[in-house]
Amino acid sequence: MLNGNGSHTVAASWEEIAARKRHDREVLLSHWADSRALEPAPSNGSITRLTILTPHQIEITSLPAHQIVKAIAGRVYTSVEVVTAFIRAAVIAQDTTNCLTEICFQEGLARAQELDDYQNRTGRTVGPLHGLPVSIKDHIDVRGTDGASGFVGWAYNRIAAKDAVIVRCIRKAGGVIYGKTSNPQSLLAIETNNNIYGRTTNPYNRDLSAGGSSGGEGALIAMRGSPLGVGTDIAGSIRIPALWNDIWGLKPSVGRLPHTGLQGPHEGMDAILGCVGPLAPCLEDLSLFCDSILSEQMAPWNMEAQTLYHPWRRIDHPSDKRLTIAIMMDDGVVLPHPPILAAMEESVRRLKTQGHEIVRWKPYATKESDELLFTLFLQDQGQEYRDHLALSGEPAVPSIEWLLTEKAPLMGLNKPNDVWPLVRLREYFRQAAVDRWTDLEESIGRPVDAILCPGAPSLAPRHDRSRHWMYTAIWNLYDWPAITFPTRHTTVTSSTSSPWPPHAPRSTLEQTVWSEWDPNWYTDAPVGLQLVGRRLQEEKLLADMALIERALSLSSDVAS
Amino acid sequence: MLNGNGSHTVAASWEEIAARKRHDREVLLSHWADSRALEPAPSNGSITRLTILTPHQIEITSLPAHQIVKAIAGRVYTSVEVVTAFIRAAVIAQDTTNCLTEICFQEGLARAQELDDYQNRTGRTVGPLHGLPVSIKDHIDVRGTDGASGFVGWAYNRIAAKDAVIVRCIRKAGGVIYGKTSNPQSLLAIETNNNIYGRTTNPYNRDLSAGGSSGGEGALIAMRGSPLGVGTDIAGSIRIPALWNDIWGLKPSVGRLPHTGLQGPHEGMDAILGCVGPLAPCLEDLSLFCDSILSEQMAPWNMEAQTLYHPWRRIDHPSDKRLTIAIMMDDGVVLPHPPILAAMEESVRRLKTQGHEIVRWKPYATKESDELLFTLFLQDQGQEYRDHLALSGEPAVPSIEWLLTEKAPLMGLNKPNDVWPLVRLREYFRQAAVDRWTDLEESIGRPVDAILCPGAPSLAPRHDRSRHWMYTAIWNLYDWPAITFPTRHTTVTSSTSSPWPPHAPRSTLEQTVWSEWDPNWYTDAPVGLQLVGRRLQEEKLLADMALIERALSLSSDVAS
Repeated sequence: MLNGNGSHTVAASWEEIAARKRHDREVLLSHWADSRALEPAPSNGSITRLTILTPHQIEITSLPAHQIVKAIAGRVYTSVEVVTAFIRAAVIAQDTTNCLTEICFQEGLARAQELDDYQNRTGRTVGPLHGLPVSIKDHIDVRGTDGASGFVGWAYNRIAAKDAVIVRCIRKAGGVIYGKTSNPQSLLAIETNNNIYGRTTNPYNRDLSAGGSSGGEGALIAMRGSPLGVGTDIAGSIRIPALWNDIWGLKPSVGRLPHTGLQGPHEGMDAILGCVGPLAPCLEDLSLFCDSILSEQMAPWNMEAQTLYHPWRRIDHPSDKRLTIAIMMDDGVVLPHPPILAAMEESVRRLKTQGHEIVRWKPYATKESDELLFTLFLQDQGQEYRDHLALSGEPAVPSIEWLLTEKAPLMGLNKPNDVWPLVRLREYFRQAAVDRWTDLEESIGRPVDAILCPGAPSLAPRHDRSRHWMYTAIWNLYDWPAITFPTRHTTVTSSTSSPWPPHAPRSTLEQTVWSEWDPNWYTDAPVGLQLVGRRLQEEKLLADMALIERALSLSSDVAS
Repeated sequence: MLNGNGSHTVAASWEEIAARKRHDREVLLSHWADSRALEPAPSNGSITRLTILTPHQIEITSLPAHQIVKAIAGRVYTSVEVVTAFIRAAVIAQDTTNCLTEICFQEGLARAQELDDYQNRTGRTVGPLHGLPVSIKDHIDVRGTDGASGFVGWAYNRIAAKDAVIVRCIRKAGGVIYGKTSNPQSLLAIETNNNIYGRTTNPYNRDLSAGGSSGGEGALIAMRGSPLGVGTDIAGSIRIPALWNDIWGLKPSVGRLPHTGLQGPHEGMDAILGCVGPLAPCLEDLSLFCDSILSEQMAPWNMEAQTLYHPWRRIDHPSDKRLTIAIMMDDGVVLPHPPILAAMEESVRRLKTQGHEIVRWKPYATKESDELLFTLFLQDQGQEYRDHLALSGEPAVPSIEWLLTEKAPLMGLNKPNDVWPLVRLREYFRQAAVDRWTDLEESIGRPVDAILCPGAPSLAPRHDRSRHWMYTAIWNLYDWPAITFPTRHTTVTSSTSSPWPPHAPRSTLEQTVWSEWDPNWYTDAPVGLQLVGRRLQEEKLLADMALIERALSLSSDVAS
């Protein structure tokens, strides 16, 4: 049986179910024949849209979200114009990277028309996102669409009766939902591949990963097929695809943004919680998203139990404020590849030139934290994942096969209270991290504003090669907000000031990741870094990031 | 062996260990011979202090905390004067109700002297609690004192090397720690009795319970042996003793106040978390406590990982603001005794007279919520409690015997992931509660400010008779802040407007609680109620409470 609608159907194979899902998608895409990019795209697919869109649509889709909403509010563009342009760019992105899942272009256009009509009639907008297309990761409920979430066995069985709370908020703010984006089988992967739709590829180089689990968002926004997207992150799933696709991603603290109405495994495992957050082409758009959802007027804390009462209170630093930034080059387990170290070194140079203070953040127990995280994720040794795969008989994709064979059997937990010592260990690590921050402040006699560090040990890797998540996941363990962002001042071929590697591999894991370094494999791969703040201080993190972005975009030769 | 200090001691019986703890306490109390109230106290012990203290000390100990700190800051009293007065009153309280555990009077006086010296030297105070004595519940770490927490097996084995974070904050704010107060064996009881110190009795009637688990705080503050105390609450443990001792208690949302450095069982069980909160003689003192701890300057979120970044932002409503209050008379499981219903009815009358709107709060799934809570508390079927008892061989006290036989075996959990469906059920109940609040607002077309309800189904009961915790525990399940407060407009003998009981018992539990109703058993028992707010909106709850207190203190015959 394919679905629960009462009709009797012959049991379909997982391949048949997946084929039907792809067929459904293709039917809806086929209405946009003049946007198709079905010819083999160049390796760097991000330029494809320039050959298909009209100049006006290229203009629109080149703008960041905060400028688009201003332009719609100011009647420079209609929402229909904007949504049409992004639908066309999304079709191109899909043909290039395979990033879309559920297509709701017609619903999006109908809503855009309603919003234009409302604005024409009243002269007002419905909210701060009025008319803006917003893309949604597959496992987040959008009423009437499927939330298969990369499990063939869930396909057609997770049609949402209502919107996730975050989607409800976006609609209320005037955002236009027009499609959903790919995520990996099971969600617990930092690459995007599943047996329904196959693999999402990197727009800059199809041989490289788009990251995950919000990989569809990363690729779609990088291709300018969306000006603002919603992902989720429990170990790096917003930040990794943002990083590897040259866009911006914010993982807020748990409970900051509404999180109800998501499909996914291990629901009820609350030892480590994920969170919803935005991916966008620029920093200001992350701010627009948070500000729109977390207003006193929107009051998402009155819509769902998990959202903390914590209205967004924007912070803007004076432009001459000087920060103290703690840097971490190496997490002690896997030293990153040379372009990432070069980006760190060049960033430090530029920050110092602009008068910011640099101190050192000492990593602590990264390996033990890694083991703890996966043991908490997979308290049932991955049994629930296997059960979901068994629903359709589909095999595990390589990254999940790795997870279930390498990461699931870490520690044996038998009784419910076997988890308690692990929760105490989690609290110990969290407290140790808070203490290190505060001790560092006491040792230098002033506040430390943020931590600057890599977001991954490599640039977007070749498919199925990502093995070390701790540059992002450690901040999920601590529940500290973090942003990944492009650092366009360095490239794949930038080299570090010292020979690399500076030491013999400290483990087979480090050796494995290092074996993935060859500049020839990473043609056009974006370079980026990560900034981390204190828990629930997202506003300050964004304000710090704005100063840092400014410092990094200036040459290191210019004195402040 | 009694302790881990390396000395070889013959294994002591639990009775010997307990006797040694009581002896230690007696030695320290014996330095205050002129304050002892060792003659059999009258049934209402709250007047005993008037016969022992000097008029000046009666004056000091009659003041609420916020007036005392003003008086010290304004040099009306010295801290030494104040601490001395409260030590003398605490000794009387101890002799009357058995509410003290660890005695640190000398340390308190020494600190008071330091604070006075500092103020004399600099003309300034160290913080908003400068010179104020603050009492601490036994299981909260105070460096150098034991945290036996009611387990004989922990006695002499939990000497704190450092302060709990809340204690550190209190000291930093200028508070003077001078002693710790009793809690029950295991902490999971709403009466205070253990095999170390025995039972804490109600100051108003020694045959009645002082409540629990912060029963020592309740009795001590009611006896004016402390102007401000710190308790903890996972099911009612702050609010029940406040209610039954005629004082005020605030259970904030989880994570609002620092919670690190507490002794207690089932650490690492984080499906339901407890919280720290104040008990005090008046509402303004609750505010003083929160404001002192949660200032940007104190920044407890930089001291511990669990505390949410959420600085206290005091709210004061204009005095002519009119609230909309949802009332719940009956939780659907146990209808309260007549004096409590009478207090509810009279409160509603007075609130209406003052122009406040009354709507109805519908309870939901109280029985199922009760089962869920105890199953989550006792995921190990109470094994850890039994293990702690076995450390010394002590028996369970009656309330814990009831817990382990009646509440522990509720549901069988075998594997770690057997807890996940229960966590999902918890989230379902929480969401349903948020939805009911929001739906109620939508149905009446305006905001609902707070919920007014009983804090327990009975007044302070006879010892070992408390059986139904859900008037307080339901708000722990939802993680909503709640205050219990005295309603002095009714008495034990106030009767309801309709015959009682209005229906046949709905369960044996209701029958059991009802069988405890006889006005003759409750002589001098205080009457109080509970006010509940939305999660993490403690400031608004306190502001609403201030308006309600004013309305309730006015006669219902006076029009607004």
